[in-house]
Amino acid sequence: MTAWVYNFGDGSAEGNAEMKTLLGGKGANLAEMCNIGLPVPPGFTITTEVCTAFYENDHAYPDDLHDQVAPALASIEIIANAEFGDPEKPLLLSVRSGGRASMPGMMDTVLNLGLNDETVEGLAKLSGDRRFALDSYRRFIQMYGDVVLGVDHYYFEDLLAEHKELKGYSLDTELAADDWQQIVDAYKNKVQEVLGFPFPQGVNDQMWGAISAVFGSWMNDRAQTYRRIHHIPASWGTAVNIQAMVFGNMGEDSATGVAFTRDPSTGERLLFGEYLINAQGEDVVAGIRTPQSLTKHAREMNGSALPSMEEAMPDVFGDLIAAYEKLESHYRDMQDLEFTVQKGKLWMLQTRAGKRTAKAALKIVVDMAAEGLITQEEAVMRVDPAALEQLLHPMLDPEAERKVIARGLPASPGAASGEVVFDAEDAAHAAANGRKVVLVRTETSPEDIQGMHAAVGIVTSRGGMTSHAAVVARGMGRPCVSGAGMLRIDTKMRTMTVAGTVISEGDVITLDGATGEVMLGEVVTIQPEVTGDFGILMGWADKARRMRVRTNAETPEESQVARDFGAEGIGLCRTEHMFFAPERIVAVREMILAQDTEGRRAALHKILPMQRQDFTDLFRIMSGLPVTIRLLDPPLHEFLPKTDADLKALADVTGIHPEAVRRRSILLEESNPMLGHRGCRLGISYPEIYEMQARAIFEAALAVKADGGEAPIPEIMIPLIATRREFDILKPKIVAVADTVFAERGDRVDYKVGTMIELPRAALRAGEIAESAEFFSFGTNDLTQTTYGISRDDAGAFLDDYLHNGIFEQDPFVSIDKEGVGELMQLAVERGRAAREDLKLGICGEHGGDPASVRFCDSLGLDYVSCSPYRVPVARLAAAQAALQSDGGTDGTA
Amino acid sequence: MTAWVYNFGDGSAEGNAEMKTLLGGKGANLAEMCNIGLPVPPGFTITTEVCTAFYENDHAYPDDLHDQVAPALASIEIIANAEFGDPEKPLLLSVRSGGRASMPGMMDTVLNLGLNDETVEGLAKLSGDRRFALDSYRRFIQMYGDVVLGVDHYYFEDLLAEHKELKGYSLDTELAADDWQQIVDAYKNKVQEVLGFPFPQGVNDQMWGAISAVFGSWMNDRAQTYRRIHHIPASWGTAVNIQAMVFGNMGEDSATGVAFTRDPSTGERLLFGEYLINAQGEDVVAGIRTPQSLTKHAREMNGSALPSMEEAMPDVFGDLIAAYEKLESHYRDMQDLEFTVQKGKLWMLQTRAGKRTAKAALKIVVDMAAEGLITQEEAVMRVDPAALEQLLHPMLDPEAERKVIARGLPASPGAASGEVVFDAEDAAHAAANGRKVVLVRTETSPEDIQGMHAAVGIVTSRGGMTSHAAVVARGMGRPCVSGAGMLRIDTKMRTMTVAGTVISEGDVITLDGATGEVMLGEVVTIQPEVTGDFGILMGWADKARRMRVRTNAETPEESQVARDFGAEGIGLCRTEHMFFAPERIVAVREMILAQDTEGRRAALHKILPMQRQDFTDLFRIMSGLPVTIRLLDPPLHEFLPKTDADLKALADVTGIHPEAVRRRSILLEESNPMLGHRGCRLGISYPEIYEMQARAIFEAALAVKADGGEAPIPEIMIPLIATRREFDILKPKIVAVADTVFAERGDRVDYKVGTMIELPRAALRAGEIAESAEFFSFGTNDLTQTTYGISRDDAGAFLDDYLHNGIFEQDPFVSIDKEGVGELMQLAVERGRAAREDLKLGICGEHGGDPASVRFCDSLGLDYVSCSPYRVPVARLAAAQAALQSDGGTDGTA
Repeated sequence: MTAWVYNFGDGSAEGNAEMKTLLGGKGANLAEMCNIGLPVPPGFTITTEVCTAFYENDHAYPDDLHDQVAPALASIEIIANAEFGDPEKPLLLSVRSGGRASMPGMMDTVLNLGLNDETVEGLAKLSGDRRFALDSYRRFIQMYGDVVLGVDHYYFEDLLAEHKELKGYSLDTELAADDWQQIVDAYKNKVQEVLGFPFPQGVNDQMWGAISAVFGSWMNDRAQTYRRIHHIPASWGTAVNIQAMVFGNMGEDSATGVAFTRDPSTGERLLFGEYLINAQGEDVVAGIRTPQSLTKHAREMNGSALPSMEEAMPDVFGDLIAAYEKLESHYRDMQDLEFTVQKGKLWMLQTRAGKRTAKAALKIVVDMAAEGLITQEEAVMRVDPAALEQLLHPMLDPEAERKVIARGLPASPGAASGEVVFDAEDAAHAAANGRKVVLVRTETSPEDIQGMHAAVGIVTSRGGMTSHAAVVARGMGRPCVSGAGMLRIDTKMRTMTVAGTVISEGDVITLDGATGEVMLGEVVTIQPEVTGDFGILMGWADKARRMRVRTNAETPEESQVARDFGAEGIGLCRTEHMFFAPERIVAVREMILAQDTEGRRAALHKILPMQRQDFTDLFRIMSGLPVTIRLLDPPLHEFLPKTDADLKALADVTGIHPEAVRRRSILLEESNPMLGHRGCRLGISYPEIYEMQARAIFEAALAVKADGGEAPIPEIMIPLIATRREFDILKPKIVAVADTVFAERGDRVDYKVGTMIELPRAALRAGEIAESAEFFSFGTNDLTQTTYGISRDDAGAFLDDYLHNGIFEQDPFVSIDKEGVGELMQLAVERGRAAREDLKLGICGEHGGDPASVRFCDSLGLDYVSCSPYRVPVARLAAAQAALQSDGGTDGTA
Repeated sequence: MTAWVYNFGDGSAEGNAEMKTLLGGKGANLAEMCNIGLPVPPGFTITTEVCTAFYENDHAYPDDLHDQVAPALASIEIIANAEFGDPEKPLLLSVRSGGRASMPGMMDTVLNLGLNDETVEGLAKLSGDRRFALDSYRRFIQMYGDVVLGVDHYYFEDLLAEHKELKGYSLDTELAADDWQQIVDAYKNKVQEVLGFPFPQGVNDQMWGAISAVFGSWMNDRAQTYRRIHHIPASWGTAVNIQAMVFGNMGEDSATGVAFTRDPSTGERLLFGEYLINAQGEDVVAGIRTPQSLTKHAREMNGSALPSMEEAMPDVFGDLIAAYEKLESHYRDMQDLEFTVQKGKLWMLQTRAGKRTAKAALKIVVDMAAEGLITQEEAVMRVDPAALEQLLHPMLDPEAERKVIARGLPASPGAASGEVVFDAEDAAHAAANGRKVVLVRTETSPEDIQGMHAAVGIVTSRGGMTSHAAVVARGMGRPCVSGAGMLRIDTKMRTMTVAGTVISEGDVITLDGATGEVMLGEVVTIQPEVTGDFGILMGWADKARRMRVRTNAETPEESQVARDFGAEGIGLCRTEHMFFAPERIVAVREMILAQDTEGRRAALHKILPMQRQDFTDLFRIMSGLPVTIRLLDPPLHEFLPKTDADLKALADVTGIHPEAVRRRSILLEESNPMLGHRGCRLGISYPEIYEMQARAIFEAALAVKADGGEAPIPEIMIPLIATRREFDILKPKIVAVADTVFAERGDRVDYKVGTMIELPRAALRAGEIAESAEFFSFGTNDLTQTTYGISRDDAGAFLDDYLHNGIFEQDPFVSIDKEGVGELMQLAVERGRAAREDLKLGICGEHGGDPASVRFCDSLGLDYVSCSPYRVPVARLAAAQAALQSDGGTDGTA
């Protein structure tokens, strides 16, 4: 018999922390907390397998599920000393989702379940607080009505607002028990009116309705969107956790809160969090009331008048500190806790590894390794390489003038400038059009996540550090300022006003998520200094990794940044990028327009000294390191003038008639330039171009050597090879140039001649190509385009459809398609190495900076990855994790 | 010790007919003729391995070659009873090339070698004919001077012409011995003048000079061009044949000629050929003198006044008939012979399988099978499938009016109309620009072959049925009229005049290569009746083949032609071709411009009945056969109006503003449409399009069934699948439409849903795709584009460079690239069949009609090939040959 239900409570549990796949994160950790003796309200978890079965069987449950739930419920009743539906001692339940990965706020929750017209009286009697009981009942009707029955929550909110207006109340606390009784009646009538049947009074109906609603919410739109963005497969499913209710709203000796065992923004070792006295948990996360600090220290830092938990409830705070210590040493990671204090007793409702900023993640693992809690290898494994990137991006220049207009909470670090938009859809739309926008909202909700993803930064006027906006923005690596209460946002007029200044949609603002400042206009950013924890962790990573990390760079500036970030050479220098400078493009155009080889040679002769200078600069920076230079790749028409003004300018300089240029342009036009006369095909047709480039490379290398610098190791890369014969025609031409230059200068440098592997045919024929080529560099951008038959420039038209329909789990241009492109890479590696044992293998597509792709490259045995300068540290860390994993390291997800 | 030299002569030989690879075709057959007792002048063959060594070792010979040539030469001297260089009994030699494959006229030949100032006197004495001896000497100086020494032949021709003018001669026969002596002196002076050294008198120098010239000619431009066109690898090399000279120009009892054992145009069983009395062999082939018929029958048919060989030399003719009988029964194939009669004795100089027209090839193999000379399988193997195509192309409508302006020899069958050009380069240029041209020349030479290949037909004013023009045109399958002497061609003025009519470059003429007629203007052509030998051979082929042959067709006309040619269904019906008819394109454009699904459905509703009618027509013609229908494939922008007039027309009909259409067009534009939003990607984005098409298909199939016809078997093909998930999303939609239509009509038909395999990723993931797809059809056009990363539309810019550099042995869009594309196909077949044993496999790219590709498809185990209607018989024959080969059949070249 399959066990669909796992009990926990009273110091023991059927599950444990290892069973996240089956019980979800929440369920597994509730069980674990029971096992280690922490106070957890008794409950049970319905497994994720039930979710899968539910969707496979047209929303029907396994036959024996009911039979397993009944005894589990009975076991709660025994521990809680209450009975479900009993008018005297009613057991109330919470029903919560909980998948393998955290999806904050995406799925449904029902609290206070088990209340009806009878049990509410029992609760009133038991608690001695009729107002509390009725408040709980109306909360239940509203939540259950909205989530399970589909009665829009605005109905309920309107009724409450009407009642308050009628009575002249402004705060909920002004409502007495009778008020709540009237609200309860009005709510029930509304349900009857909207649905045509009464609010369910049967507690078992209530429970099964809530269970189905939670399972059903797994497939709601916002959950699907969230999963798509976070690459969570739909097949994982969610578990359902049913627990005895505990109440943080039973008076001034009750409270509810969330806490992190270390500061999730900075990583500092201190209890960090927020709580609300006399409130239910949802009140904190929803950001409706501004919460209070947990510690006195934090309260003082915030300058808050409201007492901290440390001050208000010192005993319970002591219990919380003890729980925190126990959890961190048990889990060996920073924990994110949810707790409720019911009449002076602490109950733990959740623990999980806490989300954190990259900066905090770094500090936490480095500290924990220092504390002896984890090893250096574990520290390396723990940091998400992709998150590192946010550390490396520019921050606001401290010297720059800032016109600060508002201040909020530093909810997610980093800085960004962009046009203001007030709506998530506008944000998505503007971003799709290439505009940088800052999303400004009163508060965010799960419906907004696509817009948040599209924005460069997020500002909210309400909510705390653990509000939806803050949690989601940190996860996405977007800078965020939350709770900037002085902003008055008028979504209808599309303006926000602060101290008399009106900021309209489209105006540019800047936010600094590390300080909580919002500024008018754009503020200059600078490169952050990368030291301290970052340097320590990178050092550990470098000890662990096998693959080298190079960079894709053409300019001295990029190359210097990359070398500072630890790049061990250049993996891709796109020489055509050097052709577009104004003083060069004319010579390039002359070359293209030349009638014959002589004319082309004359024009190339003008380009040679400039190209040589480019290489000299790069070689100086990369002194002693390999520099892979790709010979001219794009089709020639890309260089020709497009506008009449450009045509005329060219005519003036060269004396070539604009009409002649136009005719030549038309002749060079291509239906599918991506598959056209480019790459080595240019080298075959016009060998003099590659010969000039080769000469520039060798002369530059010798110049650096002659200056006393350590000679670089040029790796000359021929693009777009599809056949060995192409390579065999071009390589000897390059070798001949080398021999000539070496003879002229009376000196030589080591060099290699190799090829991109960026066409399926090249991958298939890698064996014979490797007999001639000394290295391969996988050009996974083009290889993805040709393997999939998808032009990256045109994919936008259907990419969303493809992600939405689950055809792509991820954009294959972001993370390597292991099944298709990956198999070709594997074939190429096998065949290439079989033909040439010491064949040097690397990757220079955009994928070289994607951690999952880096891991794949490590598994293929590549020698190095190459990526853009800012992603070099990301790649170093990802390469280290890959090496540790393949050594049978600490993380089993390889 | 490697044997570099093989002797033959006097009834025996060291080589034989099987040794073509080593001895070349000519050398192997000379040896074979000796072995079977035919009279062959003694000689020896220097092997093709020497040619290879010559090019590998920088034009140096193997060390021991001289040592092997010396005894071989001595052995000729013994048999010929003459001595090389001897002033009294001089042995004269011919030095001829001879590769594995025939390359008529492409390489160099030297005759009369061994003559010098001394030996010419010996020859005069021996032959008793001083004039003959001096004529031979001047021929030798001219040929050797031109071929070996590089003295342009125009020098010699000018000297001869001057002398004739001086003496008032008009014919060569008017020159006496003294005249030739003066010519010889003048020639020698000219050589001295041009080269700065005298004409070589040493006979060994002469011989080695000639040998080197022949080997050197293997790499001359025209030989390389010929090899490229005929797919002959450069690595094969040529042999050199050195033989004792025999003279057809020793008087009226001497002659030279060429003969075919059957008529190479019709295949009729009769001795066919031409000869010249008192002439050397080159005179016949060069077409300088108009040759005489061999048989009395042929002379009478031609209405010639010159006596046939049968009449002029009855005894020798008898010997020739005997040789012909012996050769045909020995070689079991039609032979092409060269012979010389020296003073009444027949000498055989060459035999080889004769080139023939497709019509002749058919008749010959059908006749030979009937005669019991070969088996039916051998007959099937013997016919070149590609050549079949010329039989199937339109011929002139016998009813059409013909304005015949000239008549020549029916040198190569078929008919064609085109603009007149007078120069091979012009022909190539015009054809490259898509113009149809007829190449008109006085006579053609090997330099012209590229232009001949580019022309749709060839007309010459001089030369016979075995002239260069005739032989080459037949080989290429181009219609040709040769020797149309009434045409006066003025290449300078670019006109030709016939009976007062002046035809200028660019005027259109028509030629009929089956009758020898040349007509003014374009003449209507008709489809030839395909019966007789063709039908018989096709019957044998159909018995032998394993693969089915379908056709690529969209219209009823095409489908009917294809079915008449034996197509067994449709392998590719491109539905978008049905969208361009004027009354439909407006609805299609409405569909594209629709703002939403509703709008698209409304427009599709208008297209549905038209599309249904299309399918109904096709299904009637293909009743009972499978019909593969590809759902919409091209990107939508292909359907939008391009011109302002079209935009306005659309606006008038639909009320959509032209500006709106233009904006939508710009939105739909793609950088690389080949890799864009097309194929199943459209189906994912706009499922309603495929649903309409599926409905049209099922309704049409049921309509045909309801009419009492045999229901077709629709095979619905989803294009451009890259992932199984795409297929899994679209297939159920088609099945749902089928279920709906079947329910509506209360009837059903069998059908399949499958996919094109046209992307590398689809080939790699074929295993999982086959779990859902019921058939695969290889779309090798797109698969070649993506595997190679080459756009077929843009390849023209470098295709020539690629063929010229040997990167492509053949255009990969014409014949499947077995190494690259082929490996992907093989993977797809293996993985697909592993997942679904009864997976139906076919090919529908253009390659389906290419014999080499058909053979490859057979080796992969495909179930069928599909090709354009006219190529269906080609594919049937190619499939039969493939099956016979894979059964270990008669031809070992599989």
